[in-house]
Amino acid sequence: GVDSLLDPLHAADIADLLEQIGPSDRRALLALWSHEIDGEILSEISEGIREEVVEAMPREVLAEAVRDLETDDVVDILEDLDAPQQELILTALEDADRVAVEQAMAYPENSAGRLMQRELVVAPEHWTVGEAIDFLRGAEHLPDQFYHVILVDPRMTPVGYVTLGRILSSGREARLRDITEDSFRSVTATDAEADVAYIFNQYHLISCPVVDGSGRLVGVITIDDAMNVLDEEHEEDMLRLAGVGDEADVSDGPVETVKQRLPWLVVNLFTASLSALVISQFQNTIATLVALAALMPIVASTGGIAGTQSLAVAVRALATRDLTRANAARVVRRELLAGMMNGVGLALILGAAGVVIFGDWHLGAVLGLAMIVNQIVAALGGVLVPLTLERMGLDPALASGTFVTTLTDVMGFFAFLGLATVMLT
Amino acid sequence: GVDSLLDPLHAADIADLLEQIGPSDRRALLALWSHEIDGEILSEISEGIREEVVEAMPREVLAEAVRDLETDDVVDILEDLDAPQQELILTALEDADRVAVEQAMAYPENSAGRLMQRELVVAPEHWTVGEAIDFLRGAEHLPDQFYHVILVDPRMTPVGYVTLGRILSSGREARLRDITEDSFRSVTATDAEADVAYIFNQYHLISCPVVDGSGRLVGVITIDDAMNVLDEEHEEDMLRLAGVGDEADVSDGPVETVKQRLPWLVVNLFTASLSALVISQFQNTIATLVALAALMPIVASTGGIAGTQSLAVAVRALATRDLTRANAARVVRRELLAGMMNGVGLALILGAAGVVIFGDWHLGAVLGLAMIVNQIVAALGGVLVPLTLERMGLDPALASGTFVTTLTDVMGFFAFLGLATVMLT
Ligand SMILES: [Mg+2]
Ligand SMILES: [Mg+2]
Ligand SMILES: [Mg+2]
Ligand SMILES: [Mg+2]
Ligand SMILES: [Mg+2]
Ligand SMILES: [Mg+2]
Ligand SMILES: [Mg+2]
Ligand SMILES: [Mg+2]
Ligand SMILES: [Mg+2]
Ligand SMILES: [Mg+2]
Ligand SMILES: [Mg+2]
Ligand SMILES: [Mg+2]
Ligand SMILES: [Mg+2]
Repeated sequence: GVDSLLDPLHAADIADLLEQIGPSDRRALLALWSHEIDGEILSEISEGIREEVVEAMPREVLAEAVRDLETDDVVDILEDLDAPQQELILTALEDADRVAVEQAMAYPENSAGRLMQRELVVAPEHWTVGEAIDFLRGAEHLPDQFYHVILVDPRMTPVGYVTLGRILSSGREARLRDITEDSFRSVTATDAEADVAYIFNQYHLISCPVVDGSGRLVGVITIDDAMNVLDEEHEEDMLRLAGVGDEADVSDGPVETVKQRLPWLVVNLFTASLSALVISQFQNTIATLVALAALMPIVASTGGIAGTQSLAVAVRALATRDLTRANAARVVRRELLAGMMNGVGLALILGAAGVVIFGDWHLGAVLGLAMIVNQIVAALGGVLVPLTLERMGLDPALASGTFVTTLTDVMGFFAFLGLATVMLT
Repeated sequence: GVDSLLDPLHAADIADLLEQIGPSDRRALLALWSHEIDGEILSEISEGIREEVVEAMPREVLAEAVRDLETDDVVDILEDLDAPQQELILTALEDADRVAVEQAMAYPENSAGRLMQRELVVAPEHWTVGEAIDFLRGAEHLPDQFYHVILVDPRMTPVGYVTLGRILSSGREARLRDITEDSFRSVTATDAEADVAYIFNQYHLISCPVVDGSGRLVGVITIDDAMNVLDEEHEEDMLRLAGVGDEADVSDGPVETVKQRLPWLVVNLFTASLSALVISQFQNTIATLVALAALMPIVASTGGIAGTQSLAVAVRALATRDLTRANAARVVRRELLAGMMNGVGLALILGAAGVVIFGDWHLGAVLGLAMIVNQIVAALGGVLVPLTLERMGLDPALASGTFVTTLTDVMGFFAFLGLATVMLT
């Protein structure tokens, strides 16, 4: 039956399977099989269907599942559930874990405090390798995964860490404080998880101690969770740039999908009306030369692509912190020059085509000049819009796409029809 | 001087600084400071300026820098350099390392074989914890970072691995084969690095043995390198979706930037001409009612946004393998339904506005109907184009944006002007 099919699968693959089948298949599968769901599967399940799965699990199975998990995974599950389900899970935890989870939940959403696990391996800084090994051999409960022994002073301030590899390859008499890693750094529990992911990626960390406001060690973040945040940040950037709500999920039905997309489509309906307004100012010009109506989208659309290019590069560089105050001016100047060069290149092709096809030097010139203007606007808009959003403390990926394509549409139509009005009629 | 400014910085931050300053500042800084560049800095430097930096480094500094590195980092540096610089680096390596690097370079670009390090920690499967610890204490050279002891059979086939935490917390008499991890899996050296990154992320691996075609252990990949690949894959998807060459780099000057972008702009110039061709078929209609020229971009542009939304969701889901053959049909159906619902919602707003502003029921109906048609085309195109590219063995992110917006432009103009011709004139 179902058991023999699912048993050999990894928890992450079972979760994917539950996400990928349709809602009615999922209901049927959960009815048959929800008593087999363990902590690992539960923590792999995406937010989109987590409530449904928790709902389907028998209470005692749910209780056992969450008791299996490290505190960071419980917090990750908990934060997306509604209050009655949260209560159910908190009640199932042992007292010490419940306190740890509640403390983590007291930190802001998407903070290091929510991401860290409370299960720690610490040692006083004066210990030797031998003392550390004896302690580890005698420890009743060690975290599932740990990569460092964190050294703390008597006030529980982390002062360094030692990799397990160094411990294993040093003699028993070696002092831990003499074999610590240079890469040691810690983060504060209120730091944003995106900053934590950046630090892991930038400095090749494998785990990182978390301290509270007074510098005391309160938890540790491991690289698997940081990698997950990095991946979610990418998803958020990609979806926001495209004007999709970042709750979008492959298991969503049509109604959820509409909820994630219609808002930005409506916004675009209004911004697109700006283009219509601009064009309507040139109705006389178009009436005189109807071919203009056919040609005008070329300038606007090529501008939209150029704006999207510049935007993608800028948003990515802001996310990786390769675009900073230090080089913003240089990058903007680079975009300006590149926009001019792209504009001239495209103007030569399009202008020549205009002359050849319509036999009209003036029309070729209008096409070419409008193209140059709009390519410059696109290149600059693509970098200035996200930079401005960033300076305003907003997410540079959010709505940038709509702003920039509105700009290139409006400017594309205005430059082309304006020049045509002056030069052709 | 420069030394006291740069010395306290992490290698990754020094590399970022070199990337972010302008070309002339970089030349000046390298002239002063290139003798201080070590292996770590060299391996953090982005491809965009690596040749320039290698060129600036005195030969003996370069030789010492590369001798410091693990083989995977040498390979990463080597693969982007031109032949004379590659030769320089290979010559600087010790014999054993040179052989290891040359063997890695024999694997295809972007393969697991290029990503793995040759420095391994292995033990025969029959060893005890005590034997492993004694071996590690006596080992002359251990990798900088290692997280597992890999167990091998007499033919060097990996049969499992033990985390260092398990070794440290078990008694000396415990047998390694009794404390191996369930999560153990290995990859083949010819596997794509993107698949390796997926496996690390999906199964929360921290390191993964690499085997050759006959199943012999040839190297190991660690999570920091897998995280880096994941990050680069994201960058590639984001840039390709936007029609930017994926060599684009923040240190690029205007000329490199044009090289990365102009090709797709030229392609778009031709695809945009398709729209122009469609519109030109309706010149009589437009001549009769010039307001159509102002209104037609609204339908096309809103379709472009909807197509981009559907596309971003599909490309992301393909990258995370959440969109597979198993659920492709369901997702396409979902897009169809969502496209219809978005279309009806937008049609009601736009149609009503058309009726109110122009006092013409027919015009409102044309706007609304064209909107519905184009929203459906956009939603379907956004998912079918990348799915088709994927089935053809191509990158679903590549050029999808251009295809989809061409589709929504052409269909937007055709539906609107076609309906207007039938219903209004
Ligand atoms: Mg999953
Ligand atoms: Mg976790
Ligand atoms: Mg979460
Ligand atoms: Mg979270
Ligand atoms: Mg964790
Ligand atoms: Mg972000
Ligand atoms: Mg960086
Ligand atoms: Mg860097
Ligand atoms: Mg590396
Ligand atoms: Mg590489
Ligand atoms: Mg490495
Ligand atoms: Mg890819
Ligand atoms: Mg997945």
